[in-house]
Amino acid sequence: MSHYLDPIFHPRTMAVIGASNDPTKRGYRAIRSLVAANYAGEIIPINPKESEILGFTCYPTLADVPKAIDLALVCTAARTVPDVIEKCGEKGVKGAVLLAGGFSEASEAGRLLEEEAVAIARRYGVRLVGPNTNGIFSARLGCNTIGGYDMPRGPIALLSNSANVMGSVVNEAQFYGHTGFSTTLSVGNQADILFHEYLECFGADPDTQAIISYVEGFKNGAAYAKVARQVSQVKPIVMYAAGRTAEGKRAAKSHSGSLAGDYVVTRGVLHQAGVVLVTQSDHLYPVADALTLFPPMRGRRVAVLSEGGGPITISVEALAERGLQLVQLTPETQARIHAIVPNASAISNPVDAGGGTEPRVEYYGSISQAILDDPNIDALLLVGFFGGYAQRYGESVAAAENKVCTELGEMMRTHGKPIMVQSRAAHSRTEALDILRKAGVPCQRHIEVAVQCLACAADYHAAKRRLLDVAAPATASTSPRASRIVDVEVRAKCDLLEPEAKDLLKAYGIATLPQRVMQRADDAGRIVEALGDGPFAVKIVSKDILHKSEAGGVRLDVAGADALKAAFDDIRCRVLTYKPDADISGMLVTPMAQSGTEVIIGVSGNAQYGPVIMFGLGGVFVEVIRDVVFRALPLTPADAREMISELRYQAMLDGARGAPKVDRQKLAELLLAVSQLAMAHSEITEIDLNPVIANADGYAIVDARMVLAAE
Amino acid sequence: MSHYLDPIFHPRTMAVIGASNDPTKRGYRAIRSLVAANYAGEIIPINPKESEILGFTCYPTLADVPKAIDLALVCTAARTVPDVIEKCGEKGVKGAVLLAGGFSEASEAGRLLEEEAVAIARRYGVRLVGPNTNGIFSARLGCNTIGGYDMPRGPIALLSNSANVMGSVVNEAQFYGHTGFSTTLSVGNQADILFHEYLECFGADPDTQAIISYVEGFKNGAAYAKVARQVSQVKPIVMYAAGRTAEGKRAAKSHSGSLAGDYVVTRGVLHQAGVVLVTQSDHLYPVADALTLFPPMRGRRVAVLSEGGGPITISVEALAERGLQLVQLTPETQARIHAIVPNASAISNPVDAGGGTEPRVEYYGSISQAILDDPNIDALLLVGFFGGYAQRYGESVAAAENKVCTELGEMMRTHGKPIMVQSRAAHSRTEALDILRKAGVPCQRHIEVAVQCLACAADYHAAKRRLLDVAAPATASTSPRASRIVDVEVRAKCDLLEPEAKDLLKAYGIATLPQRVMQRADDAGRIVEALGDGPFAVKIVSKDILHKSEAGGVRLDVAGADALKAAFDDIRCRVLTYKPDADISGMLVTPMAQSGTEVIIGVSGNAQYGPVIMFGLGGVFVEVIRDVVFRALPLTPADAREMISELRYQAMLDGARGAPKVDRQKLAELLLAVSQLAMAHSEITEIDLNPVIANADGYAIVDARMVLAAE
Repeated sequence: MSHYLDPIFHPRTMAVIGASNDPTKRGYRAIRSLVAANYAGEIIPINPKESEILGFTCYPTLADVPKAIDLALVCTAARTVPDVIEKCGEKGVKGAVLLAGGFSEASEAGRLLEEEAVAIARRYGVRLVGPNTNGIFSARLGCNTIGGYDMPRGPIALLSNSANVMGSVVNEAQFYGHTGFSTTLSVGNQADILFHEYLECFGADPDTQAIISYVEGFKNGAAYAKVARQVSQVKPIVMYAAGRTAEGKRAAKSHSGSLAGDYVVTRGVLHQAGVVLVTQSDHLYPVADALTLFPPMRGRRVAVLSEGGGPITISVEALAERGLQLVQLTPETQARIHAIVPNASAISNPVDAGGGTEPRVEYYGSISQAILDDPNIDALLLVGFFGGYAQRYGESVAAAENKVCTELGEMMRTHGKPIMVQSRAAHSRTEALDILRKAGVPCQRHIEVAVQCLACAADYHAAKRRLLDVAAPATASTSPRASRIVDVEVRAKCDLLEPEAKDLLKAYGIATLPQRVMQRADDAGRIVEALGDGPFAVKIVSKDILHKSEAGGVRLDVAGADALKAAFDDIRCRVLTYKPDADISGMLVTPMAQSGTEVIIGVSGNAQYGPVIMFGLGGVFVEVIRDVVFRALPLTPADAREMISELRYQAMLDGARGAPKVDRQKLAELLLAVSQLAMAHSEITEIDLNPVIANADGYAIVDARMVLAAE
Repeated sequence: MSHYLDPIFHPRTMAVIGASNDPTKRGYRAIRSLVAANYAGEIIPINPKESEILGFTCYPTLADVPKAIDLALVCTAARTVPDVIEKCGEKGVKGAVLLAGGFSEASEAGRLLEEEAVAIARRYGVRLVGPNTNGIFSARLGCNTIGGYDMPRGPIALLSNSANVMGSVVNEAQFYGHTGFSTTLSVGNQADILFHEYLECFGADPDTQAIISYVEGFKNGAAYAKVARQVSQVKPIVMYAAGRTAEGKRAAKSHSGSLAGDYVVTRGVLHQAGVVLVTQSDHLYPVADALTLFPPMRGRRVAVLSEGGGPITISVEALAERGLQLVQLTPETQARIHAIVPNASAISNPVDAGGGTEPRVEYYGSISQAILDDPNIDALLLVGFFGGYAQRYGESVAAAENKVCTELGEMMRTHGKPIMVQSRAAHSRTEALDILRKAGVPCQRHIEVAVQCLACAADYHAAKRRLLDVAAPATASTSPRASRIVDVEVRAKCDLLEPEAKDLLKAYGIATLPQRVMQRADDAGRIVEALGDGPFAVKIVSKDILHKSEAGGVRLDVAGADALKAAFDDIRCRVLTYKPDADISGMLVTPMAQSGTEVIIGVSGNAQYGPVIMFGLGGVFVEVIRDVVFRALPLTPADAREMISELRYQAMLDGARGAPKVDRQKLAELLLAVSQLAMAHSEITEIDLNPVIANADGYAIVDARMVLAAE
């Protein structure tokens, strides 16, 4: 497994442009930190004024170096950068890390300088990291150009829009001392290499088992989602993405020039791609750490074990709020637990092994064993005091506690079920918890963080299964009939009006109500003959009328030929009053839809992620509550099902307020068919099915609109 | 300031019943921990088999002790407790701490034993802590009966439904080492002394500046709310209350036998009483700690200062989500900051002092000064690296960083504005952060926790101002007219039907639509004479018909005398078909309400908190989304305004979807008047105004129902 960015992260030879003998300069500190990290490649300082720096032979220019160079670490000021890249290109350097600020993040002049640098780099095929990055750390060759950090090494890659957020995660790993990083990188301005390329490289990196990302916005979100979909099948991506609030979007823009976009879209698209999104920055490290240790979590059923009830109550609240399930242990398991701790306060799940007054740490092992043997349970959460018994009760219980710690690690491996420990002693770093961690079991100080680790494991492994289960979604082929419908409108440079839009939907197997277009009032008889007596919805068809109701262009519950005739004249009169020169193509007549729950479906182009599809509850739910879910196109069947089950107010689909329970399968099929239609006709840039009335029998698309790309 | 529970928390003499010379026994460990804590009172061991324990003279029985005893620490088993309490009573002991488990939490036999113990205690006036508590710690006299803890001392009282949650908070204080506890208590079964009595005692305690509470449910929530309302005016109560989820409620019940009740009610009532509710257990300690240090926060306008943008973005998201405001600094402040750091990346708020590559910790002081001088700013949040400069960049910056730390403490005092520091070095406990903390400025490791501290400060001080601003809400006096209306129904043993309910509302100054009751169809002419031509709503009035629409008992948009007559006959016919023996009192005729936004108002009795009032958005918002807010009765004007502004979907009140913006003042007056009505008529146990149509002109109460107390 090699990747084209490997020479950048694992350079055999590194030139330090602007190397220095002045200890306050970046060109000195970088070399010192490479030496401190035992960099296994060759350091080649470049400085016309020096002959040797920190024991390394210094060359006046790159051209003078008598060997090939993988990476240039550019420590010189912004204005020198285009020239330096030119020299790198001439030398055949594969990548350059640009530390200087003062580019697009600073000013318009800086933006032009950045453009110039990129143009030169592209000409030579030199790939650029930054500018405005604080450098790279990668563990394999000990390539630490960041300076100042004693970087803990381990299986986590760290990819950040912010050097400070990166540093914060590194500090956390340093504090706990249990794990560390294969690579860390603050991407800077992403003038050349974008997030998705780094991600792809870390995805292929055998030293990386999880990727932490802090993202303020994507320059190419569609490419990112595509790569993430691949990488997530192999290792988890744990991400904090900015942009949940208008204020956050502004701050991201101001900081890194990033466009954070609509968070609801980001959430949908990244979830689809298997990314584990967290909304608290302090969850990044614990979740990634736990995911490198856990075996795959097969479901959402968690058992809680404690000695004392308060931590159980808090855990249970947090588990329920994250959609994890507390299912009863089997009678056999309960019997086993009862035999171990006859006085236990609770044994069905949660298990409260307390009930006496004396500590009984030795029972944790056998109870955990019983719980993990239970087929109803996918993961085990220990909360409260475990890990702190010896600290509290003295050395007499230390051996027993330490033994359980070792056993838990073995159990996690043999049962293939995650074990998460929350211990109030976690900050004290007790001997027991060190043993536990060496045995491979993660431990956190706070209950809510521990629960978040399990919830993210369940989310991630469900997404991974979803991504591995399906082949790539079928690229829909268009039918001649569909093409004809679209082509006519493309030629006419006209958006699809409701009748054509519904015809096109029909061509993709989507259920539509029977429809007829009335050209004149006298058509009424013919229509009643074809569609029956109604009641009908009668709607204006006119390219000049976008908001039909507002224009008086809709009449509902019209029954019989006479009423139809009258409705035609009435609508015509109202519309022409509203807009005297409206070009009226006719009136669309359809049977009234059965009652049900209003939903909406839309397809549109997103600036970050390309074409996306939206599904939501209609009416007040979309307009005020915004209960909508997005995905990137194309959808898989599993995506379509998840979109439906992700709506916040599920009750509306399940028959709230006397409405019928909707047919989710038919709605999922509808979403898939719309996805196929949109993929087959890139000329259509916007689809709006609003409202769609869903009920137990399926759905009725009450209105449909499709917009063609402007030429 | 003394409180009747003071002898329990600060006993001058303590008898240890079941004292022991066996180091594994509770009766030994308790004495040892009292000695270790330098208990300033007198320890009196009681044990017929010993003459001396740990150097203290041991007495065979309480009766043998030749002096008065404040507190008995009862270490003996559950079955001995009634007898022990009898002896305590005879001796005139003021309080007893019952450590044993095996009472109501364990079994029915235990419950009876507990009842017996309480009955004896009540007879003698002995107050009981527990049973099933792990003891008391109070700092003033060094009264530590918990055993095993080296308890950090400080200004926080800790009151918990769980010994383990208590211990967890204590561990956190031990880890940080900055503050500690005046008192800690796990309440156990609350057989006698309830939460609100402890709270009142801590409220009066001069050593306590903040109270942390972990609550699984109240035995007397109304009393708690009443005491909390008083205590919150003096010091903050920071609480985690269980019961947000059905699973959490079950766990709380199973653990402590607590009934957690409806969390929406709990949240509303406790918020009204000034309690600071957190929903993550890991916020308890940081928030309480910060609140003991902060000066009052005057508003919600926060400035953020950092050197680097990522932490700013994360802060801003969290601030916005917690309703804190980032307002622009004045031009003068910006100019001052610009003069200090001309290259700063951002100076308007957030302030990103970064922009160069070198650290500049010395500027934090002068920039903070400029920000705190700004009249637009209520608090300052420092995020990112501050506190870790010396650690990262070496001793050369230590002096400057330490100096700023001291200055920040002075600034917080002189400006009277909270300063919160988030530092990624917080876990490392750097010298700078120790100085900062000694200077009185709180520091947290995680951005989201730091933001929570500020948000809770803003919430708390707003609530405190609200509680201090108003005199006690006026107790409404009932009018003769109102009494007559209610008395008639009380005598008739009948709930108030719509016409009487509306008459009663009117008697409290509540706007009602004109109404007439039609007794027969021929009344139509008379009614049109009185009310005009309509259109009217016509509704059945019958004690036998609760669901009027379902019974065919409602006709809308009825215009003119003839239609009114027809409607009367029609409704009569339908209702009698629906329920042939219905006793029909007539038909209520009112003008149709103007259109607007549906809201609902209800009053009902709550098992935990007594009578509560609900306000919410109507229709799908109450039925599916549950966008409702509760308060305990009686309301103050500020309570009423807050109820309205706390609804989640404010847009619905502000003219979403073409609806008119509602008149909030009139709605607040309506809530107040309903509160007065309910307070004046305790016979009315339930009021249901649903729907109320609110619009720019006020409101129209479309339906009203009142239920009288069953005798």
